Amino acid sequence: MTKSSISTDVAIIGAGPTGLFAAFECSMLKMNCVLIDTLDHVGGQCSALYPEKPIYDIPALPKITAQELIDSLEKQIAPFSVPRLLSKTVTELRGEKGNFILTTHKGDQIHAKAVIIAAGAGSFGPNRPPLENIELYERYGNVHYYIRYSDQFKDKDIVIAGGGDSAVDWALALKNKAKSITLIHRRDRFRAAPESLCRLDCAITEQKIHKMVPYQLHQLNGDHNGLNSIDVISMDGVVKTLKADHLLAFFGLTTNLGPLESWGIETHQGRIPVTPSTCQSNKEGIYAIGDVSTYPGKLKLILQGFSEGAMAAHAAYSVVYPDMALHFEHSTTQGIPSK
Amino acid sequence: MTKSSISTDVAIIGAGPTGLFAAFECSMLKMNCVLIDTLDHVGGQCSALYPEKPIYDIPALPKITAQELIDSLEKQIAPFSVPRLLSKTVTELRGEKGNFILTTHKGDQIHAKAVIIAAGAGSFGPNRPPLENIELYERYGNVHYYIRYSDQFKDKDIVIAGGGDSAVDWALALKNKAKSITLIHRRDRFRAAPESLCRLDCAITEQKIHKMVPYQLHQLNGDHNGLNSIDVISMDGVVKTLKADHLLAFFGLTTNLGPLESWGIETHQGRIPVTPSTCQSNKEGIYAIGDVSTYPGKLKLILQGFSEGAMAAHAAYSVVYPDMALHFEHSTTQGIPSK
Repeated sequence: MTKSSISTDVAIIGAGPTGLFAAFECSMLKMNCVLIDTLDHVGGQCSALYPEKPIYDIPALPKITAQELIDSLEKQIAPFSVPRLLSKTVTELRGEKGNFILTTHKGDQIHAKAVIIAAGAGSFGPNRPPLENIELYERYGNVHYYIRYSDQFKDKDIVIAGGGDSAVDWALALKNKAKSITLIHRRDRFRAAPESLCRLDCAITEQKIHKMVPYQLHQLNGDHNGLNSIDVISMDGVVKTLKADHLLAFFGLTTNLGPLESWGIETHQGRIPVTPSTCQSNKEGIYAIGDVSTYPGKLKLILQGFSEGAMAAHAAYSVVYPDMALHFEHSTTQGIPSK
Repeated sequence: MTKSSISTDVAIIGAGPTGLFAAFECSMLKMNCVLIDTLDHVGGQCSALYPEKPIYDIPALPKITAQELIDSLEKQIAPFSVPRLLSKTVTELRGEKGNFILTTHKGDQIHAKAVIIAAGAGSFGPNRPPLENIELYERYGNVHYYIRYSDQFKDKDIVIAGGGDSAVDWALALKNKAKSITLIHRRDRFRAAPESLCRLDCAITEQKIHKMVPYQLHQLNGDHNGLNSIDVISMDGVVKTLKADHLLAFFGLTTNLGPLESWGIETHQGRIPVTPSTCQSNKEGIYAIGDVSTYPGKLKLILQGFSEGAMAAHAAYSVVYPDMALHFEHSTTQGIPSK
């Protein structure tokens, strides 16, 4: 990992779908920008958590998987050569409108005239169940907190733990692929979309999914080849052993928005209040878009993140080029650079 | 054309890209809706004025023509069977939130709980140059105010009149297709993007485009086979005759927003001021989205029209289902109906 010093017009923190599209909008307005992300790849949660999940509500894209969406956004910014600082976390943000200095945990310095924060839910990690040696089985590839590719579960014995959408949806998604699926939850009821619960009941009746409630994870058993079985325990202390090649544990994510407040950026319940139509935070020249930003009536849709990216880029233009009026152009008038 | 009486949750006036996507968002929220448009096809200006024009700034669609955009939006709403009232102009809108009655110029009645106005620039038509028999040559297919398909100009003698983006862009777009192109304008200077003006100078130097300024259209000459030539006149009265198979006249559009104000909807400079984040007009239950709506900082992008469509649909939900809280769901949780 190299330490760098970069000067740019706009520093974009977060390279998920919203950050990527903001980079496109900045580039179309002839502003330089860089993308910075904690992850080692662009795409944010779309790529890290649910790349295979279909999305239906992106305009003019009737059905696209999360990873395909990211790939298309990558293609859209490709003509502009936007530098990326990946596996880098911004730890410090100083200065003011026209002259910000960002520092990463690796010591990189980015000088930028404006900053767009597209940090989603922040850097995120799974809530781990408190089981002995769980890190060991994570390294063996037997314990999963989110599923990037489902083919690894073909003809395997799977234990899924959790009571929400993810547990139910993945049990349903894998029911014809895995050898066996046991769904365990410490309560009687699952919280999921009504249609999913209905499909779950069917799958249980058809013996495609084995439900064990109320049960909790108790112990992981295995050897140098990895996981063999999982002990689960009922509320009154009865232990049962389930044959298991994989554990899928869905207990939610812990998120960490990092040191926003120490940068002087106002937050409210973990999000940054912004002015609608410019997406500017309480600090001039610092904008927040996508899931990390909030305003009255805000809808948490990827589409709104795109739209906010366009607004923030146009607002940042007056910071980057304080003496120029923005002559507004449609993409059809201007075209894009050929490469 | 049949006269109909329809009851629906949301009446959407205007079936351009913004109206189409609003229909998708309403449908995803399980509200019925109908699309009403003055044109005989969906797609608004995208389909009527510039179907072949490439668009670069729709998120995750690096390059798409206007007509392809409309086709994709059509595909996106196809699972929902949204009725369309085409070639119908809404002339009357009465009633209030929860109980509106719209009437078309053909006498159709639409009962709707909420109304979304996605009327773009309103119904539109070309500014025609004041030339004798111009309607005759329009019927012959020799006079054009907007270009739907450019292949008809292959190896033809073309006269293009006008001084703006459309005249310049089409002269450039057709320069390697037409047999000859003469660009006439009553002033010396053209108003177009700097890069286009630069390319125009090149094309004139290369004799791909013949520029005649300052000249005006004077007379169309032809016979029962159509247009043969066009007389143009200089400011000091010199007439020249140009061989011409086609005239492309770009003098802008006249637009007509219709009787909005008589419906009690406040307008400002031909647009409807709305509350950002709900897109509600001054009348409760009536929303305006896309080019027809305005608010401080509004960007005139198709993307913003899409985003506003999502906001208006969510806002309309509380009018359509006043007693239900909207349980917000991502499309990935809910899926779309299979058909």
